[in-house]
Amino acid sequence: MSTAGLERFSINQMTVKQLSMPELVEACGESGVRGVGLWREPVQSYGLEATAKLVRDAGLTVTTLCRGGFLTAIEPRERAEAVADNRRAIDEAATLGTDTLVLVSGGLSAGSKDLRGARERIADALAELGPYAERHGVRLAIEPLHPMYASDRCVVSTLAQALDLAERFPAHQVGVTVDTYHIWWDDTAPAQIARAGAGGRIHSFQLADWTTPLPQGVLTGRGQIGDGSIDMREWKAYVEAAGYTGAIEVELFNDGLWARDGREVLAETAARFVEHTR
Amino acid sequence: MSTAGLERFSINQMTVKQLSMPELVEACGESGVRGVGLWREPVQSYGLEATAKLVRDAGLTVTTLCRGGFLTAIEPRERAEAVADNRRAIDEAATLGTDTLVLVSGGLSAGSKDLRGARERIADALAELGPYAERHGVRLAIEPLHPMYASDRCVVSTLAQALDLAERFPAHQVGVTVDTYHIWWDDTAPAQIARAGAGGRIHSFQLADWTTPLPQGVLTGRGQIGDGSIDMREWKAYVEAAGYTGAIEVELFNDGLWARDGREVLAETAARFVEHTR
Repeated sequence: MSTAGLERFSINQMTVKQLSMPELVEACGESGVRGVGLWREPVQSYGLEATAKLVRDAGLTVTTLCRGGFLTAIEPRERAEAVADNRRAIDEAATLGTDTLVLVSGGLSAGSKDLRGARERIADALAELGPYAERHGVRLAIEPLHPMYASDRCVVSTLAQALDLAERFPAHQVGVTVDTYHIWWDDTAPAQIARAGAGGRIHSFQLADWTTPLPQGVLTGRGQIGDGSIDMREWKAYVEAAGYTGAIEVELFNDGLWARDGREVLAETAARFVEHTR
Repeated sequence: MSTAGLERFSINQMTVKQLSMPELVEACGESGVRGVGLWREPVQSYGLEATAKLVRDAGLTVTTLCRGGFLTAIEPRERAEAVADNRRAIDEAATLGTDTLVLVSGGLSAGSKDLRGARERIADALAELGPYAERHGVRLAIEPLHPMYASDRCVVSTLAQALDLAERFPAHQVGVTVDTYHIWWDDTAPAQIARAGAGGRIHSFQLADWTTPLPQGVLTGRGQIGDGSIDMREWKAYVEAAGYTGAIEVELFNDGLWARDGREVLAETAARFVEHTR
């Protein structure tokens, strides 16, 4: 298979979660894919050291580890546990040889209506985690999630909010993840991408397409590249104009794709990436 | 039943769509509700003149008519039809004696990825409809819908976008609808409410609560007041600080509420309104 146009492509593991870790690595080889975004749970299942060796031996670049975060708890014990878990995530990222840990910041605590307070607690946690990450050669990448997740997954809903948080810390400690799925509707996002780029804070760039109707729970309806409403070339141009030259991950949560043969989905995703970004 | 705290309350008809028009009017009387937001389809079913007489005789104020809009079509014939339909909606609003027509602007045309172009086509249509509305004593109220509707229902996702559009026209022609459900996640919304108020452009204020998980299609999951993540007093305070003294509609699309006795839901909604806004 031709690998032209795949130089910066990275497959986020969640897109083909039906593949085991060795199957994923093998399928990447077959499809000419040189980068992978990994998730903590499958890494832990296969074994951290074993995964690190597997991907290293295959010559794959681990573009991100997903994910840290969930830093909005109010209760002190819960907060301490979350910070400790994020330290472990940073350790894992370092072992896997990736420089980027993606953060999904967390939703509102049960019964709370205080978005502002939740966002402040994220900043408090980052003040602890940023220096720790730096010592391990890992950058934290706050991912704004679509506003439909504001209550239960991520109170950081826009790039502007993510940058307001990130800019309290050095760029080599805290930046942002730009994911088309979450920001495509936002007419202020292009300017925020420029702001992120000027500050050296675009630590990850991910693609997914927007398709409707959304499924119940709205977690598993991310569209294959080209199937939805998002102009991928336009968003790629924004991050490139902002100076980003790194990997471009495709991260899809999609029941339909998960029900298919993972190797076939990986090959299709790589082909769609080339078709819609080159 | 006590009506203290209900002086500004208006029940949007969709909240209790299981009630026929006469049942709705009767239930309002029983619950001490003095305002209703009506929808075009049930008005047309019962008859426009008959509805106007019914609510007038009951002494009810029609706070809004929902809804005009869907102004994003590309194809000229479709565009002309949409504008003509909005003229009819303005006529209906005038006949019903309400001064406000709520606009849901419309999504992307099939196959289009051009949000910017769609937003411009809305402006083109408003240039035709604004003067027509003014001649009929009706104000158009652009409602930004939650970004999860950006592709298929409304490319206007934030108050800032709605005001960018509205401010091209006189305030007595075009303003905005502030609905907590759609904007509660947006940390820039309070400043935009102030901007809207300063320009005399808050033409409608609606409440619904945010609850999860969202249902398939994300249309019918609006939470009863007090059941979700939104601090209603906070948002009421924002619009009041911006000078808004008008009606406050509760508009819920909720399968659970629709399955219950409509009179009971209306009484509950009125009670929740008082509990969470007074």
